Amino acid sequence: MADPDVERAEKAAAGVGGVTVHADPVAALDAPGVAAVLIASPGPAHEEALLAAFARGLPVLCEKPMVPDSTGALRVVEAEARLGRRLAQIGFMRRYDAEYRRLKALLDGGALGRPLMLHCTHRNVSSPGDFTSAMLINSSVSHEIDAARWLLGQELTAVTVLRPTPSSGAPEGLLDPQFVLFETAGGALVDVEVFVNSGFGYQVRCEAVCERGSARIGDEHTMVVTSAGSAREEVAQDYLVRFADAYDRELQAWADATRRGEVTGPSAWDGYAASVVAEAGVRSLETCDREAVELAPRPDLYAR
Amino acid sequence: MADPDVERAEKAAAGVGGVTVHADPVAALDAPGVAAVLIASPGPAHEEALLAAFARGLPVLCEKPMVPDSTGALRVVEAEARLGRRLAQIGFMRRYDAEYRRLKALLDGGALGRPLMLHCTHRNVSSPGDFTSAMLINSSVSHEIDAARWLLGQELTAVTVLRPTPSSGAPEGLLDPQFVLFETAGGALVDVEVFVNSGFGYQVRCEAVCERGSARIGDEHTMVVTSAGSAREEVAQDYLVRFADAYDRELQAWADATRRGEVTGPSAWDGYAASVVAEAGVRSLETCDREAVELAPRPDLYAR
Amino acid sequence: MADPDVERAEKAAAGVGGVTVHADPVAALDAPGVAAVLIASPGPAHEEALLAAFARGLPVLCEKPMVPDSTGALRVVEAEARLGRRLAQIGFMRRYDAEYRRLKALLDGGALGRPLMLHCTHRNVSSPGDFTSAMLINSSVSHEIDAARWLLGQELTAVTVLRPTPSSGAPEGLLDPQFVLFETAGGALVDVEVFVNSGFGYQVRCEAVCERGSARIGDEHTMVVTSAGSAREEVAQDYLVRFADAYDRELQAWADATRRGEVTGPSAWDGYAASVVAEAGVRSLETCDREAVELAPRPDLYAR
Amino acid sequence: MADPDVERAEKAAAGVGGVTVHADPVAALDAPGVAAVLIASPGPAHEEALLAAFARGLPVLCEKPMVPDSTGALRVVEAEARLGRRLAQIGFMRRYDAEYRRLKALLDGGALGRPLMLHCTHRNVSSPGDFTSAMLINSSVSHEIDAARWLLGQELTAVTVLRPTPSSGAPEGLLDPQFVLFETAGGALVDVEVFVNSGFGYQVRCEAVCERGSARIGDEHTMVVTSAGSAREEVAQDYLVRFADAYDRELQAWADATRRGEVTGPSAWDGYAASVVAEAGVRSLETCDREAVELAPRPDLYAR
Repeated sequence: MADPDVERAEKAAAGVGGVTVHADPVAALDAPGVAAVLIASPGPAHEEALLAAFARGLPVLCEKPMVPDSTGALRVVEAEARLGRRLAQIGFMRRYDAEYRRLKALLDGGALGRPLMLHCTHRNVSSPGDFTSAMLINSSVSHEIDAARWLLGQELTAVTVLRPTPSSGAPEGLLDPQFVLFETAGGALVDVEVFVNSGFGYQVRCEAVCERGSARIGDEHTMVVTSAGSAREEVAQDYLVRFADAYDRELQAWADATRRGEVTGPSAWDGYAASVVAEAGVRSLETCDREAVELAPRPDLYAR
Repeated sequence: MADPDVERAEKAAAGVGGVTVHADPVAALDAPGVAAVLIASPGPAHEEALLAAFARGLPVLCEKPMVPDSTGALRVVEAEARLGRRLAQIGFMRRYDAEYRRLKALLDGGALGRPLMLHCTHRNVSSPGDFTSAMLINSSVSHEIDAARWLLGQELTAVTVLRPTPSSGAPEGLLDPQFVLFETAGGALVDVEVFVNSGFGYQVRCEAVCERGSARIGDEHTMVVTSAGSAREEVAQDYLVRFADAYDRELQAWADATRRGEVTGPSAWDGYAASVVAEAGVRSLETCDREAVELAPRPDLYAR
Repeated sequence: MADPDVERAEKAAAGVGGVTVHADPVAALDAPGVAAVLIASPGPAHEEALLAAFARGLPVLCEKPMVPDSTGALRVVEAEARLGRRLAQIGFMRRYDAEYRRLKALLDGGALGRPLMLHCTHRNVSSPGDFTSAMLINSSVSHEIDAARWLLGQELTAVTVLRPTPSSGAPEGLLDPQFVLFETAGGALVDVEVFVNSGFGYQVRCEAVCERGSARIGDEHTMVVTSAGSAREEVAQDYLVRFADAYDRELQAWADATRRGEVTGPSAWDGYAASVVAEAGVRSLETCDREAVELAPRPDLYAR
Repeated sequence: MADPDVERAEKAAAGVGGVTVHADPVAALDAPGVAAVLIASPGPAHEEALLAAFARGLPVLCEKPMVPDSTGALRVVEAEARLGRRLAQIGFMRRYDAEYRRLKALLDGGALGRPLMLHCTHRNVSSPGDFTSAMLINSSVSHEIDAARWLLGQELTAVTVLRPTPSSGAPEGLLDPQFVLFETAGGALVDVEVFVNSGFGYQVRCEAVCERGSARIGDEHTMVVTSAGSAREEVAQDYLVRFADAYDRELQAWADATRRGEVTGPSAWDGYAASVVAEAGVRSLETCDREAVELAPRPDLYAR
């Protein structure tokens, strides 16, 4: 782990165990046993770290923006191209969001035909104190820039930024909201409302309008596909899909509590009560009548 | 790892590494270095394994049903009560589902007042070949039995099972769907539609009707709370809430690909293109005009 | 118009014009020019009025309940059967609700197969002061009784009323909510939550669970049909469907305002402004550029 | 009634009764007993008809566009201004749509603060054969032009029309879809997707983004208001709100059937059956037990 603020790094490292802390990122790269690098420093520090990782042949996951200015970004691209092999992955994490992936799969599948437009919304409750009007573009909308390129599989060819009268909820001088239009190499149009002081929520939505239907994500429910006269939401076909996260969370919670010497989840009493009720239910299924449920006295161990 | 089918266990163990396989679960419990036990065998094998774990003082996560018959279940409860400390957690995983947890928190918070009724739906696409009418109760509805006890914090006191004419989509002789009514110690009513050959989806829904509002989960969107004249869905306030899963998936995908010596995610070219477009956007913000986006030639390394 | 409270009737009649008021409903039926009868008196007065209309061969629309006690109701049925022709229509107005009609059409069409269960909700904000526990059944649930018979095309064969602990929001002594189960001649099951002091809204919902899918109405959006792995809402195909009510309302508002010598809707200025903007839009379509909109000065007549 | 195609007019008039048909609209205006005029002829005929109505002091409801070219539209405005009193209402019917009215009321109420942007969608399944690229603006978007002016209470000051690559579902040569941007006198921004050959539905949506929340209509459910961390839909408080249309439809259907000498709605048998079931329900409420429902034999008159 490397951080100019060594004290902060020591604190973070302590929570993991077995981690050596460095002030200098390059020294960290040269430490024994380094197999891959995760760069999460501020953007201006990225170029140097990326080039150092390339020089050592180390795979690297680099937070976005890869390099804030495009000249530096091009130097990174050229360096990797000279290497002749791919080492860098950039942290555009929307490509890993379940809803975006479903939308991408739908567009790639071709059922809705060619995408004509993307309507995007990017709202935050409020912006940090040092947020500038340009950062609505290069910090916030940069997510939509990558998402649009990825979803459409096309480069963006022109951009127009429109400025409605700023919200009185935005800090003095900040142009917020903005409305951004992108044109693409394939003639599609992408519009983005970016509103970082909306006050009401973190909302990231995207509607792809295609030749034979539209699909919308990010709207407090699963992807809605409109085509052929109806608006549809997919219904899970399997409990593993519906409850995958619950199973993960259950095992993690059990492991964590067990490490602390505790039991925090459903108890043996809960298991017992379920058996008694289920047995009464099966009796009722046979008798077609109401069946009372009789539990043994609850041991003190299971007092609520 | 213990499994009477040692070959199957060897195969599973190979995917993890550093695991010793046993045919006899008790032998596995006695192996050195065992700190906790996860019981995922069929229900009838649970009692013996639980008692063996208790005898060794080992924490245990046991899949539901804890013990299929309530007499055996009570023996487990009594054994743990004699120990005087809690070791067992039962695998009622709905308590770990994000929507159920939100519903539980809402009910416990008291904003809607006392719960009066729970309306539950439990639908599967189809049931396995050996599914019996009793299993709709003791295998499927057993989830609702625990969920109702947990959500309401009350024991169930009586049960009535109603049998509509079976669906022609259900196997001959299977009473499917069923409609199950539970009464609770606090006078609430719980109804459950269980329909394991619905053909159309895996749907688990729960609506809690309270004195001052109702809340519904499982409906292809986030929890809907109806009170004081409106139906509301919570909107995330933070990108960490909205995109937590995406961040996890991103890191895991990167680690997996890196182990295989590949880069599968956004490339340095994607990082570069984002920089160029963002710069053009910032120019447009200043000029209030359309700005063209000019990319350098794309190196072969980044050919699609 | 007939009402024992002649003064009240005179007041109502004055708003319509050309209406003669009677204290005695039978005298009203005998008045010249009566072609049909609408009975909106309290239930106990219905039987006499219906029989009088039958005696005169007059078509009649009678508010529900037709006759509160079933013996009297049977006398009305027998009287009409003796007449040998149909004269009476009963005021079960849910059959005329757009959502119920869509659900009925869907069920009759057979796409979802045989209905197995209806899950119904009937909630009011609060009940009138004189509401009794029996009225939850014979005044509120009577709507679901007719809706279930109509939707399923089957008679109901048995009923069970369950009583959860009453809400503290209900008046002392009122059993509210209740949970009512109906069995049908075809083996379907109908359950109804009736909750007349819910406090939070007037909600009438119905989900029909069928062999190959389910359909739900009354849920703050259009009918949702779940089948074959997705939940779907119909999207209108035509502006006449979407805006039928708006066209009616527009014409009525214009007629009403014109009678009062006023203009309350969009003005000639609005028509003019639309022309100017549309022309600028067509220019922009040609120039591919931003076009300014220039309006003539707004005459005082159109001051806001 | 006036129509150059007298035969067509005669046919329409026959369905109403008591209507005199004219070939010349001015002759119709001069007929005795004309109290108001409804102009539903093609746009180019409107100016003459409007001026004739003004000359006779007749109130007039004129379909949109009032006058297609803005010079002619201004002549109408000036003529009415010279009259010194308002006679004309223009057929912008969205102002009478229940959802738009709710949105207007919400914006005017000020709870969400100043509107910053309107995002609009206007989709048709397909366009008539003679539809031109300009008609997407002056026939389709003209609805949004009026709606935006009305909702915001501001004039529009500039317009930009963008042309994504046309859908292959659009007729050769038609620029469809288009994306239209309006700027307003108050600094708000209005964007409109117009797509008249979407193939999938008639969708008219509008989202108003304000300083303290957003509100969306037209989305297959009631208005959704997002503010303060939740997305809300209003729940009706009263059956008159929920079922107003059903009551109208019931009465109209009864009147229509009665004129034809038929009964098409719920019968006396339906009224009787409801009484019997309700009585059994009230018994069950008292006995807390299942009660059978016994119907008298169904007279032939009520055979299905």
